[in-house]
Amino acid sequence: MPRTIASEEDLIRTYLAPLARSFAGASDLTDDCAIFTPAPGTELAITTDAIAAGVHFFPDDAPEDIAWKALAVNVSDLAAKAATPRIYQMALSFPEAPTHDFMQRFAAGLAEAQSAFAIALSGGDTDQRPGPMTITITAVGEIPTGMRLTRDRARPGDAIFITGTLGDAACGLKLRRDDADARDWQLSAAEKASLVARYLRPEPRLAAASIIRAHATAAMDLSDGLAKDLGRLAAAARTGAVVDAARLPLSEFVTRLAAAGPAILDLALSGGDDYEVLFTAAPDSDSAIAAAALACGLRVTRIGTMSEQRGLRLSTPAGERPMQPKGWDHF
Amino acid sequence: MPRTIASEEDLIRTYLAPLARSFAGASDLTDDCAIFTPAPGTELAITTDAIAAGVHFFPDDAPEDIAWKALAVNVSDLAAKAATPRIYQMALSFPEAPTHDFMQRFAAGLAEAQSAFAIALSGGDTDQRPGPMTITITAVGEIPTGMRLTRDRARPGDAIFITGTLGDAACGLKLRRDDADARDWQLSAAEKASLVARYLRPEPRLAAASIIRAHATAAMDLSDGLAKDLGRLAAAARTGAVVDAARLPLSEFVTRLAAAGPAILDLALSGGDDYEVLFTAAPDSDSAIAAAALACGLRVTRIGTMSEQRGLRLSTPAGERPMQPKGWDHF
Repeated sequence: MPRTIASEEDLIRTYLAPLARSFAGASDLTDDCAIFTPAPGTELAITTDAIAAGVHFFPDDAPEDIAWKALAVNVSDLAAKAATPRIYQMALSFPEAPTHDFMQRFAAGLAEAQSAFAIALSGGDTDQRPGPMTITITAVGEIPTGMRLTRDRARPGDAIFITGTLGDAACGLKLRRDDADARDWQLSAAEKASLVARYLRPEPRLAAASIIRAHATAAMDLSDGLAKDLGRLAAAARTGAVVDAARLPLSEFVTRLAAAGPAILDLALSGGDDYEVLFTAAPDSDSAIAAAALACGLRVTRIGTMSEQRGLRLSTPAGERPMQPKGWDHF
Repeated sequence: MPRTIASEEDLIRTYLAPLARSFAGASDLTDDCAIFTPAPGTELAITTDAIAAGVHFFPDDAPEDIAWKALAVNVSDLAAKAATPRIYQMALSFPEAPTHDFMQRFAAGLAEAQSAFAIALSGGDTDQRPGPMTITITAVGEIPTGMRLTRDRARPGDAIFITGTLGDAACGLKLRRDDADARDWQLSAAEKASLVARYLRPEPRLAAASIIRAHATAAMDLSDGLAKDLGRLAAAARTGAVVDAARLPLSEFVTRLAAAGPAILDLALSGGDDYEVLFTAAPDSDSAIAAAALACGLRVTRIGTMSEQRGLRLSTPAGERPMQPKGWDHF
């Protein structure tokens, strides 16, 4: 029989307190409050995201991957604000006491993510209650005072950029679910593993901070699909947007799959889970951004232009067509 | 048929955004991150607590009361640090879309609590998933730099104080559950309502801030029962404590009930949900604290003394006996 954890105090002391050791204000998780002192000259970006078994991850995902995703989806919001990650609060709920094996692996995944994102656990809450295992994280990052970015400052004519490639995670999800159509994709085992990893282990684009700070007029992360998220950014700025289908950055895998049918392009536009950064910049900033992207080692692609005309349109060789702001709905 | 809420955006725009209006950094909840600038010369106290239907509240509690409790249990942690409440992030999960009526009343309860505690909604997350309705809040308060209080600085000989009275909420819970023994308590309807309100609507002791800042060597809020929470404070300070049973502050109701049998005293020691502040202070601080309590209108009672000898003891007319650190376990 796998050993289950006997008490909340055991869980905190054995598995969570070590994750808080590098942050003195956490008092080794023996206190109800963490004490955090922001660096002088900074203001704070604060974000909250919850992930639940059976909704945002598979109950049989590796505990290391669940932990990574829970933290990464929050840090991705900080990355889109060019905020430097500092601390996070984590509320865990389990339908039954977890096993030592699960918690050891879950904590290992968190430790790996903390190290990758330079963030520390500061406190939280642990409960046993019915329903799926849920991890709710509130992450805090620092921004130099006066450098805050919002969604609403994009202007008609601004260029639209995204980091990385689109649709890999959505393809990875189909593979993870073993969807019938994904079985026909004729990918090697290594290619499959690589796409599934894009779904299981999103990589917050913290390296984009210098580009965003220097150039972005508005920014957000892509979690619910480009079509839906760009729709939100355009709505906040009371503008529209035209996306050039030919410019959408697709990985080699997704390009190959897209050649087989238009469904993959839909997946790239609406599939979600990309966790890339979407940002707008002045109309004439293309070459400066290309240089900045090169300097920080990120792929950054201009995909379109903000427009006076409201709504989203996709420009294709066959002409412009409306782009429906569909994607993941939380509700 | 009660109308249910159609979408996450509807829920946020209609019911949650108004709660964030007084905090500009929330961008009317249209952004993934809140931006918060702490006042100069302060550091932050950060705390996270979740409450779930069927675990921490009754599924048929009034929506206003559920909302109040969700925020109050977090603000109580800030009160015990003498922190000034500023903002909170809230993650909501519903097993099915809530009705407009529920959300209207839930938002009204939050608005009332926000106003009472001088705190604003800054952001959060909303999801539909199986399991009980859950509200997970992370609250942030400000402390003058250098005034941080922890649990571990109590010293043997320090006097132990608590605000308010013990056991009312635990009695209120028994009445709310309609326990057989509570039916014999011979309370008037008004008395019952008053005790149940102590359970449903905890009052964070923010008024204690000046006393705590001036006098406390260690402080925490009482959520899981005096016996358990004092045990934690003593353990953190590597000391013990002696509590004088005759000094335990009981309301008039609970005093009357206690005369009927010792079970009520157990409830006062271990029942939980008091949300009073427990703090220690220098051995000779009794009269200064009595004066400070008078000035801020709070009942503050010295209940015992920290001891070299580890463990908790209860001093009664019949002599000292060990006090078991039992109480609410989250796990």
